[in-house]
Amino acid sequence: MNKTGKKKDTAVILLSGGMDSAAALGVLAQKYKPAALHLNYGQRTEAKELDCFARLCDHYGIEQRLIVDVSYLEQIGGSSLTDRNMIVPKANLDSKEVPNTYVPFRNAHILCIATSWAEVIGAKKIFIGAVSEDSSGYPDTRPEFYEAFEKVIKTGTRAGGSIKIETPVIDLSKAEIVKLGLELKVPFKYTWSCYVGNEKACGVCDSCALRLRGFAKAGAKDPIEYEQVFKTEIFV
Amino acid sequence: MNKTGKKKDTAVILLSGGMDSAAALGVLAQKYKPAALHLNYGQRTEAKELDCFARLCDHYGIEQRLIVDVSYLEQIGGSSLTDRNMIVPKANLDSKEVPNTYVPFRNAHILCIATSWAEVIGAKKIFIGAVSEDSSGYPDTRPEFYEAFEKVIKTGTRAGGSIKIETPVIDLSKAEIVKLGLELKVPFKYTWSCYVGNEKACGVCDSCALRLRGFAKAGAKDPIEYEQVFKTEIFV
Repeated sequence: MNKTGKKKDTAVILLSGGMDSAAALGVLAQKYKPAALHLNYGQRTEAKELDCFARLCDHYGIEQRLIVDVSYLEQIGGSSLTDRNMIVPKANLDSKEVPNTYVPFRNAHILCIATSWAEVIGAKKIFIGAVSEDSSGYPDTRPEFYEAFEKVIKTGTRAGGSIKIETPVIDLSKAEIVKLGLELKVPFKYTWSCYVGNEKACGVCDSCALRLRGFAKAGAKDPIEYEQVFKTEIFV
Repeated sequence: MNKTGKKKDTAVILLSGGMDSAAALGVLAQKYKPAALHLNYGQRTEAKELDCFARLCDHYGIEQRLIVDVSYLEQIGGSSLTDRNMIVPKANLDSKEVPNTYVPFRNAHILCIATSWAEVIGAKKIFIGAVSEDSSGYPDTRPEFYEAFEKVIKTGTRAGGSIKIETPVIDLSKAEIVKLGLELKVPFKYTWSCYVGNEKACGVCDSCALRLRGFAKAGAKDPIEYEQVFKTEIFV
């Protein structure tokens, strides 16, 4: 219930278990009732991320949870070594433009799943913790992409234009995301960033380094445990 | 090679194994080199459809084939009986607006997969045998939806605006699709429409009746075998 006694609208949050989507959930929870969607790619840190997803859901009292296996994405973007149905010309296999780890148009798939679920459960908003800074030039992380996708939702769903996409952290740096999350009391202890799937975060991979730098710049202590802590002083 | 000796561009065809997509393939094959995409929903006629997919691919000499398992769609649209991760409020479970068989926004998922694959293999067109007449009012079969989706492709792919969606049979009746296919020498013997998964088509389900009526109106004989033939005279 909100202050006027009216029941809160439901909003879908794409909750990976990372910091950015946790911060986006913090923003969502101020106004909406969250429904949490987690996508499983079969990545090796999946157990950790799924654990964070469950803990964040418990923390925010989220009842509506959906975990979708999107391993079909690997099949589309995969090499002929892993996909027996796909015959790719050699010219494409050797191309540097589309590495095997990159799935073109990935965020469109993610938004499709979120949109279908939003329509099924009657949610009016989809929150996604996309960050432009992370985009590395990928086209499907730009604001124009999200605007165009909203028009597809408008023309392609029964709900019409009533489902909107929210990208509350798209223009923020990692340090700003830390600050925002701390203001909103987001439990960052239930988030995972490390590329390695060990018990504690490694502290030295790219993702750990970015996270630690974000906390250092925000003047805060990262609440998760590390095997070793990257010297963040050099960044600040 | 086309008449000018230039290598043909590749176009992706969404090839279900049904008549409409087979006719769309016939149109495509006049100008482009086809790459065939088949989506497996785990439906009970899947074996028949997959067989038609393979035969159509062989007939047109299609080397690039991709079969993607999209059973995750059932999970999104499914009831809580089949999806243990999903908790749907009772109000929605009883809703008549979203039946369990309907996946909202389904065609957006299909186009996402086609777009990702088109980008991976360098295809410039995506052909889909969507038919407005079949839409039953579903929003994601309208031309506006396809136009909006093209803008998402433009903003969300590396290829930018160079991938276009073609819907060559969208305004045709079933009889017109039969006529078009026969003109283009589409082997309708390698297509399947029956909802029942028996050896021969049942001849009496809705889908068989529509197909038989289409052939009757086109003044042609359906080349597939039926267990019994629905009296189509009443339609003509």
